[in-house]
Amino acid sequence: MAKGITSRSENYSQWYNDIVGKAGLAEHSAVRGCMVIKPYGYAIWEKIQRQLDDMFKATGHQNAYFPLFIPKSFFSKEADHVEGFAKECAIVTHYRLKNDPNGKGVVVDEDAKLEEELIVRPTSETIIWNTYRNWIQSYRDLPLLINQWANVVRWEMRTRLFLRTAEFLWQEGHTAHATKEEALEETHKMINVYSDFAQKWMGIPVLIGTKSEGERFAGALETYCIEALMQDGKALQAGTSHFLGQNFAKAFDVKFQTKEGKLDHVWATSWGVSTRLMGALVMAHSDDKGLVLPPKLAPTQVVFVPIYKNEEEFEAVSEKINQLKSQLDSKGISTHFDNRDTVKPGFKFAEYELKGYPIRIAMGPKDLEKGTVEIARRDTLTKEFITQEKVSDYVPTLLDEIQSNLFNKAIEFREQNTTSVDTYDDFKSVLNKKGGFILAHWDGSAETENKIKEETKATIRLIPLSKQDGSGKCIYTGKPSAQRVVFARAY
Amino acid sequence: MAKGITSRSENYSQWYNDIVGKAGLAEHSAVRGCMVIKPYGYAIWEKIQRQLDDMFKATGHQNAYFPLFIPKSFFSKEADHVEGFAKECAIVTHYRLKNDPNGKGVVVDEDAKLEEELIVRPTSETIIWNTYRNWIQSYRDLPLLINQWANVVRWEMRTRLFLRTAEFLWQEGHTAHATKEEALEETHKMINVYSDFAQKWMGIPVLIGTKSEGERFAGALETYCIEALMQDGKALQAGTSHFLGQNFAKAFDVKFQTKEGKLDHVWATSWGVSTRLMGALVMAHSDDKGLVLPPKLAPTQVVFVPIYKNEEEFEAVSEKINQLKSQLDSKGISTHFDNRDTVKPGFKFAEYELKGYPIRIAMGPKDLEKGTVEIARRDTLTKEFITQEKVSDYVPTLLDEIQSNLFNKAIEFREQNTTSVDTYDDFKSVLNKKGGFILAHWDGSAETENKIKEETKATIRLIPLSKQDGSGKCIYTGKPSAQRVVFARAY
Repeated sequence: MAKGITSRSENYSQWYNDIVGKAGLAEHSAVRGCMVIKPYGYAIWEKIQRQLDDMFKATGHQNAYFPLFIPKSFFSKEADHVEGFAKECAIVTHYRLKNDPNGKGVVVDEDAKLEEELIVRPTSETIIWNTYRNWIQSYRDLPLLINQWANVVRWEMRTRLFLRTAEFLWQEGHTAHATKEEALEETHKMINVYSDFAQKWMGIPVLIGTKSEGERFAGALETYCIEALMQDGKALQAGTSHFLGQNFAKAFDVKFQTKEGKLDHVWATSWGVSTRLMGALVMAHSDDKGLVLPPKLAPTQVVFVPIYKNEEEFEAVSEKINQLKSQLDSKGISTHFDNRDTVKPGFKFAEYELKGYPIRIAMGPKDLEKGTVEIARRDTLTKEFITQEKVSDYVPTLLDEIQSNLFNKAIEFREQNTTSVDTYDDFKSVLNKKGGFILAHWDGSAETENKIKEETKATIRLIPLSKQDGSGKCIYTGKPSAQRVVFARAY
Repeated sequence: MAKGITSRSENYSQWYNDIVGKAGLAEHSAVRGCMVIKPYGYAIWEKIQRQLDDMFKATGHQNAYFPLFIPKSFFSKEADHVEGFAKECAIVTHYRLKNDPNGKGVVVDEDAKLEEELIVRPTSETIIWNTYRNWIQSYRDLPLLINQWANVVRWEMRTRLFLRTAEFLWQEGHTAHATKEEALEETHKMINVYSDFAQKWMGIPVLIGTKSEGERFAGALETYCIEALMQDGKALQAGTSHFLGQNFAKAFDVKFQTKEGKLDHVWATSWGVSTRLMGALVMAHSDDKGLVLPPKLAPTQVVFVPIYKNEEEFEAVSEKINQLKSQLDSKGISTHFDNRDTVKPGFKFAEYELKGYPIRIAMGPKDLEKGTVEIARRDTLTKEFITQEKVSDYVPTLLDEIQSNLFNKAIEFREQNTTSVDTYDDFKSVLNKKGGFILAHWDGSAETENKIKEETKATIRLIPLSKQDGSGKCIYTGKPSAQRVVFARAY
């Protein structure tokens, strides 16, 4: 099956599309820009959701659900926000169809025009802060720590499955606080939750920092982000956490009585990750044979494949496999016994390599004799024989090892592809020959940032939180710079 | 807090609204017809979702995700479906806003008109069967057993929280089968899953049957449903499972090669339940003091309230409560220790009654002396003292007892409110004086059904699967009838 996958060296972009398609993760739909998330892709997304949701609840958040539609006028209330979000969006103008008087089918009923158009939410700050106005009167109502799992729509002309689609699935946290300090603390806390999740669960190392003003969320005073490096040397923003100050509270008139009895506007944060994480997961670990999944997010961690020539051998092998399978099941490991007799073992091997099952265990009549099984690791593509008695102890250890190995490989790759440069020539040379994260001094101006972007397509991915680099001179203007920032071409 | 709740006898409809509002389940949003599901309401919905999802997976289904938008022309492909669904819906006609040249704010950019309008999905048969065409070639691809958790929109002029809203959350299963028999078996299986869930988890007894032709899903050959009886004697449809025959396969040209090598159209089912279940849950068990929740769906099953006069007493009571709490936690019971010192115990008692926490455990200095606690049941509003050592054994038993008691009370209520009648006069008299389910003979014609509906507002809720009643004469026309059907006024 891997025959159909373009190699990374030949065409990285096509390699990505091949894996997403052939591993059964997602496909384009009949609706321009909207994807279908197929069962296997959705099963991975469910694992991502479940873990993140547990982490949100462990940090005191509750889920709720707000409307899909937002009245058009809401977007105009926060000046920056409307510029950033209300332009490319899906607009509902009518609420009824009627039979076409001139023929077959249905047409829009012009009598059913909405007084005010509704926007399909591109993000929910406006409708949520309009709701919070009635929920918050006093400091006793704060903090309000709410998250929503939802679909959102941003009209995109050029789409790529998971990475950029018109409709996508995400979670959006929206919190309200009595003080600036608390809101800032929440902003930090959530970017750290995202970082933990990316590193410990997805096996993807990420940098944490703030966005430059030009890359900031529309309406935020500060945007924190995590950035990961893909195998082609391009960066991918994997999650953001925004400190919104009092902007939305002022726009939607959300005031509260402080402990001291004064009226003040509420402080806000918002933070989100989306099905884009699926794109990062595919690109971070996979190889030319297909998807490679970290065990913690693999819907099935271990697959058993029987080898046999006749019914008798199949029965004997199956009995032993079922024993081993239930040993692993009882340890909370997710397993599958592929006992299909319509396809050969070689076909199954290729299929599970393509789909990135972390461990494959094959067993045939010879293994029965010897009391062994053959264990294959997806990450290293290595195989080994171990005795059947050891399987239930060995597999959990091996899953941990695979999880660590993927993360360590990704860390190593990032280190090899992170370069400090001191001149603009070096910057361009590294960018074109090697790519990756480039650490360089920048004078802090939007003008310089834009010129570098225009000339090289590289953007400032983030300004690192720790300023250990010390000061220097901007690679573009020679003006003073307080610290190096991270540049890259990005998804 | 219960002061604010209208009694059922005074105004049942207002009672429902009061509970939904004051228990913090949901509220109307700024967008007409769309609700905000508040954290406590959403926590209950999450429990419903989790359990149903487990039941779907245990019966072999996988989740996937299909687009929010459906091209207008798709609705015209299945003749009955378009009549039933494509009329009152949200229609996306444009994809861009621009700054208003004549003033502040934004307006629709008329240059950004879609070539074909997009409908916000009211249900997803059309887009899903259009997708299945590419997924199904051979009998080996069948059955295809897929479920989707999603939001859908049906434009409603008169809305009620949970019961009827323009946007609501639901799951929709869409399965494809090689034979009619398999599709029918799936249709039955899923209505039974819904029935099990309603009875064992929600504590709501339901009748199972088929819909009359007039009440059938648009595009279905047969619709199975579960119907529950609310405390005001009105019926509520709690879930449906549709046998779609080959209608959608024919409309979207989905054929497969049979084992015998012939080409045939695929057989289909679809089935769904929605946030409407929340409305049923509220109305089935609650009383004039507030919400009553079955323990299996209560986000918090046991709340501890400390009674104390000073810091020292608080410390002593808290220590013991924390011990008892962790005993219960370790048994998988969800608990909360309300240690707020900003409100009095009486306030807390009222709050947890309003919110329907199944068990409340209070403990004060006297209890410490005697080694007791006071346990209050929400369902019966009774209290008893038990020794602290017994708490961890008693509470799980009591939760089971509360779960059973709610179901048994509802069964008893339904029995008392189910009446067989043999004349139209009796029918109208029972309907107006008592309500409930009315078993009556019907001649099987849509005309009679419609006349009864026009004259009495009662509809045929279902035709029972078992025909134990025997034949008789239609109460309206006197024509022969094979069995009694179930009439009621309904939500």
